[in-house]
Amino acid sequence: MNTFGTKYRFTDFGESHGPAVGGVIDGCPAGIRLDMELIRQDLARRAGVADADMGVSSRAAHEADEVEWLSGVVEGVTIGTPIAFMIRNSNVRSADYDELRDVFRPGHADYTYLAKYSIRDYRGGGRASARETAARVVAGAVAKQLLMERGIQLEAALTRVGEQTNPAMFAETIREAHADGDSVGGIVSCKICGVPAGWGEPVFGKVQARLAYAMLSINACKGFEYGAGFASAAMRGSESNRFSGGMLGGITDGTDIVFNVAFKPTPSIAKQQTTTNVDGKVVELLIKGRHDACVAVRAVPVVEAMAAMVMVDFML
Amino acid sequence: MNTFGTKYRFTDFGESHGPAVGGVIDGCPAGIRLDMELIRQDLARRAGVADADMGVSSRAAHEADEVEWLSGVVEGVTIGTPIAFMIRNSNVRSADYDELRDVFRPGHADYTYLAKYSIRDYRGGGRASARETAARVVAGAVAKQLLMERGIQLEAALTRVGEQTNPAMFAETIREAHADGDSVGGIVSCKICGVPAGWGEPVFGKVQARLAYAMLSINACKGFEYGAGFASAAMRGSESNRFSGGMLGGITDGTDIVFNVAFKPTPSIAKQQTTTNVDGKVVELLIKGRHDACVAVRAVPVVEAMAAMVMVDFML
Amino acid sequence: MNTFGTKYRFTDFGESHGPAVGGVIDGCPAGIRLDMELIRQDLARRAGVADADMGVSSRAAHEADEVEWLSGVVEGVTIGTPIAFMIRNSNVRSADYDELRDVFRPGHADYTYLAKYSIRDYRGGGRASARETAARVVAGAVAKQLLMERGIQLEAALTRVGEQTNPAMFAETIREAHADGDSVGGIVSCKICGVPAGWGEPVFGKVQARLAYAMLSINACKGFEYGAGFASAAMRGSESNRFSGGMLGGITDGTDIVFNVAFKPTPSIAKQQTTTNVDGKVVELLIKGRHDACVAVRAVPVVEAMAAMVMVDFML
Amino acid sequence: MNTFGTKYRFTDFGESHGPAVGGVIDGCPAGIRLDMELIRQDLARRAGVADADMGVSSRAAHEADEVEWLSGVVEGVTIGTPIAFMIRNSNVRSADYDELRDVFRPGHADYTYLAKYSIRDYRGGGRASARETAARVVAGAVAKQLLMERGIQLEAALTRVGEQTNPAMFAETIREAHADGDSVGGIVSCKICGVPAGWGEPVFGKVQARLAYAMLSINACKGFEYGAGFASAAMRGSESNRFSGGMLGGITDGTDIVFNVAFKPTPSIAKQQTTTNVDGKVVELLIKGRHDACVAVRAVPVVEAMAAMVMVDFML
Repeated sequence: MNTFGTKYRFTDFGESHGPAVGGVIDGCPAGIRLDMELIRQDLARRAGVADADMGVSSRAAHEADEVEWLSGVVEGVTIGTPIAFMIRNSNVRSADYDELRDVFRPGHADYTYLAKYSIRDYRGGGRASARETAARVVAGAVAKQLLMERGIQLEAALTRVGEQTNPAMFAETIREAHADGDSVGGIVSCKICGVPAGWGEPVFGKVQARLAYAMLSINACKGFEYGAGFASAAMRGSESNRFSGGMLGGITDGTDIVFNVAFKPTPSIAKQQTTTNVDGKVVELLIKGRHDACVAVRAVPVVEAMAAMVMVDFML
Repeated sequence: MNTFGTKYRFTDFGESHGPAVGGVIDGCPAGIRLDMELIRQDLARRAGVADADMGVSSRAAHEADEVEWLSGVVEGVTIGTPIAFMIRNSNVRSADYDELRDVFRPGHADYTYLAKYSIRDYRGGGRASARETAARVVAGAVAKQLLMERGIQLEAALTRVGEQTNPAMFAETIREAHADGDSVGGIVSCKICGVPAGWGEPVFGKVQARLAYAMLSINACKGFEYGAGFASAAMRGSESNRFSGGMLGGITDGTDIVFNVAFKPTPSIAKQQTTTNVDGKVVELLIKGRHDACVAVRAVPVVEAMAAMVMVDFML
Repeated sequence: MNTFGTKYRFTDFGESHGPAVGGVIDGCPAGIRLDMELIRQDLARRAGVADADMGVSSRAAHEADEVEWLSGVVEGVTIGTPIAFMIRNSNVRSADYDELRDVFRPGHADYTYLAKYSIRDYRGGGRASARETAARVVAGAVAKQLLMERGIQLEAALTRVGEQTNPAMFAETIREAHADGDSVGGIVSCKICGVPAGWGEPVFGKVQARLAYAMLSINACKGFEYGAGFASAAMRGSESNRFSGGMLGGITDGTDIVFNVAFKPTPSIAKQQTTTNVDGKVVELLIKGRHDACVAVRAVPVVEAMAAMVMVDFML
Repeated sequence: MNTFGTKYRFTDFGESHGPAVGGVIDGCPAGIRLDMELIRQDLARRAGVADADMGVSSRAAHEADEVEWLSGVVEGVTIGTPIAFMIRNSNVRSADYDELRDVFRPGHADYTYLAKYSIRDYRGGGRASARETAARVVAGAVAKQLLMERGIQLEAALTRVGEQTNPAMFAETIREAHADGDSVGGIVSCKICGVPAGWGEPVFGKVQARLAYAMLSINACKGFEYGAGFASAAMRGSESNRFSGGMLGGITDGTDIVFNVAFKPTPSIAKQQTTTNVDGKVVELLIKGRHDACVAVRAVPVVEAMAAMVMVDFML
């Protein structure tokens, strides 16, 4: 199942070590002039270009993600037919992965993919790789522009890194984890402004349910909450009734939609770890290569992209 | 959109004040002998029959939910055709709702339904009413039995009420809130044992994403997390790698699946609240009638039902 | 797969010898006053009440199909929630079927159902029985009313019976076949007037493709053609270009939509037939009981119902 | 809606005058070695390479359709992830179309597309162009190979051209039509051998209904029939019961599946035609450029491709 959405339908393809990643957007209205610079910026945010001080790996920072439009867009304007696009993969270094051929990295999908498919593409994670999210960011950036035409603004930001909630200290917290050969988790918060009251459906078409589904489909995501979220469990009704989070009964109420998404620390750390290999033996593992110390940093534009696709689906 | 699932497809119908609630299950295999007593028990848990000391309203406690099977079941055994069932509504008291005709209850879907549909069924919430979850419990109880045939056990429990995490104190905490004319939130935790490694799909078919979607479709749910969940945001990788929550890369790893679901306090409280009416005027509101002081109590079998339907969909 | 349509979604349930047949309509707009008399008339046409002279079985003619509305309709008006309805089965005579327990009737689904499900409900065909179409007629009659509100008229008629194309001779042709202990095929033609140009989608959302799918889902249907249909294979372009059948490139062109549906003769005939039984032996079979000599007669309202559901799906 | 199928899901993209046509296949099992030569042959048949004597246009005969695999295939073997592919468009001659800017060609989708989208890509028909079927042929050729692994053979052939049913005379019939500046229709018949009994679903999942939907989605298709088809309308049951066409009650019976598909003559003819233009005026039109005199010729591999995708969907 590699398709997301019902009216704005995005079909995603590509392996991290194949020729390209990309997708097909079905259902995008005709006549939208795409702001290619905005798409480029979101791809750069995902690639971590500006986040060198956030412990983002230099590999990421130099990925040059160029979108090639294969259909549905003529001279930068959508024509109503399916929009197919691709981003060629480059700089594919499999050498780092050779030592991982027979071992299950803790916290990664190595074991579960083998259990499911009986074969495993150990070079970079195949479909489990975060590389795949580049295609989501493109499809989400197009969705954002559809929302903007209706006056809807959507913005995500990192609001917690480890124990730290002061943004001024995030870079330092990440550097500390990195210096320790470790990684650290984080929370991305998203706010959507300008959505009118009345979007969404009762029962199985609730806006929050679609957002939760979208967020939990992102690599390393461990939780979703909206409005007062988990804190509402500790509240009384007289207090909780003041926090709708923008949705009641699954339907937008015209106030800002606010939700939080929890990301676990990157499972690839520079410390030695105990794990098992494909023969079932307990082995010691030291993962080489460059890895982000905090995946939540680069998850920010992915959260925006997925949220934009959910909201556009309700809009159309 | 009143259908849930892809292979085990459940279509849900019924208003709280209409003739019946019920559903159609499409995709249930033939030859399953249904344990009607188990279905009755789950319905009784949802109705709060045994939870009088948990502040569950007496109305609920006396609802007699009798399932009538309309198709797909012959002498208690499924025959592979769509299973249609209904539960007649009884004890419909609209009088309590007359005063709510023109006013928006805080924390309820009154305003959002009006915004969406322009008309509003003020008598008991229509499709937004928790009455609808009775049908989910039936469909989920059938799903549970399919899972049990494969050795999969699924159990949810209340693990937090307000500030309290000691189950022995839950009833007291709820009574206190009720005595104050208020309500209180809670967390339901669910564990699924016996699922083999390899269920689920990468990208948009992740098990955790479907569970999140299922849980956020339940009334009053404000959040979902699995494994270390939101706490993993504060962890380092060396710690977080020990908590998979039963899924990695969206695919089960053969360990127990564990997740938490946050429920807000019942928005209907006995305290006077400030709200607005259909004319946009600020008014004071005192909601009459009997209401649960903690909806999380009766949400427990609904969490189980939705989780069972998600897992059966992956099993089939 | 017992659901039809995407926006006007109809989920169908019920066995011919179970408690009831019925369905759930999801996606019907609120505020439509249902003309119950019209629904009753379509059910009566399907039941063959007025067609005694057309060789319709007396069993059929006396079925009293009463619709019970379970949800979604209040005082005859739709309220936007799922519309669930059922028709209780009565007059269930299994005795006629006892002799068919071990034998495969030629032209029936007896063998294929056994091949698929390993068990077989020999009493009246289970889901393969035409009894199931009663639910389609109800859902189609509601769809027709939605179309009528937009000025769209839809009408099907029997245009061929056996070799006969003169309607005045249909009854006689059917009686002759019946007198011979045989049955006869027919063609139902349907015309839809008032559909504006521009409905439908290119590629896989073509109106004619959805109509073909809908018609071939009806019991005993063997073919679908629109416009000049199969005759266009024998034409030249200069002639064929004059017959659009109401659709070009899958999209309506504003002219009347016209199509034909071929129905085979009832496979149940009163003549002795050679067939096989469940043990693989060749046996002689003489089917007892009352059977229509021409199923196409009662298929007319079913063709209308399915066509109405297809068109409403494009309208919404 | 540009996606076909449920388990073997094919999403189709590309305009005839854009950079490329192509698609994404989701659900193809891993480990299938693709026979690239077979795919090339089917593309060549669709392009009419060997059919110069059948009046196929020389433009078509020289299209060089090279498939580029973007994901899901490593060294010719499928890996279970989505298979994305594209075929670059070349030889795009818009000049021939300039005179068609303001006029509606009879029998084409020019008018209906304008009615639907308000804009029209007059250069080559956009998504209505038969160019799009190249992507279907690739996806179908992959499906065919999955079927072959299970011993299922699928073959279509031209069985009628105009009034002619003798294959030896087809080329001459087409040449005559072409010499007259006209075109001619045809029938493509398809046989599927080796399908076991028991595939398909009752009610809305009938094999014949999915085949009809698939065929009517092909450009210029006007009708579908299986088994005795329309001829069964003229038969009696005692005769008709001998022709199942491979399916009974929507489920395969283990005999060969046989069906016919009617194609209208190419609407683009070299004769002067009377039509209307975008201003609603009646004008005389003489279409220039090269056009096939009988589209049914090149439809043969498209019929096979669509049939293969339908059958694979039931197989998986």
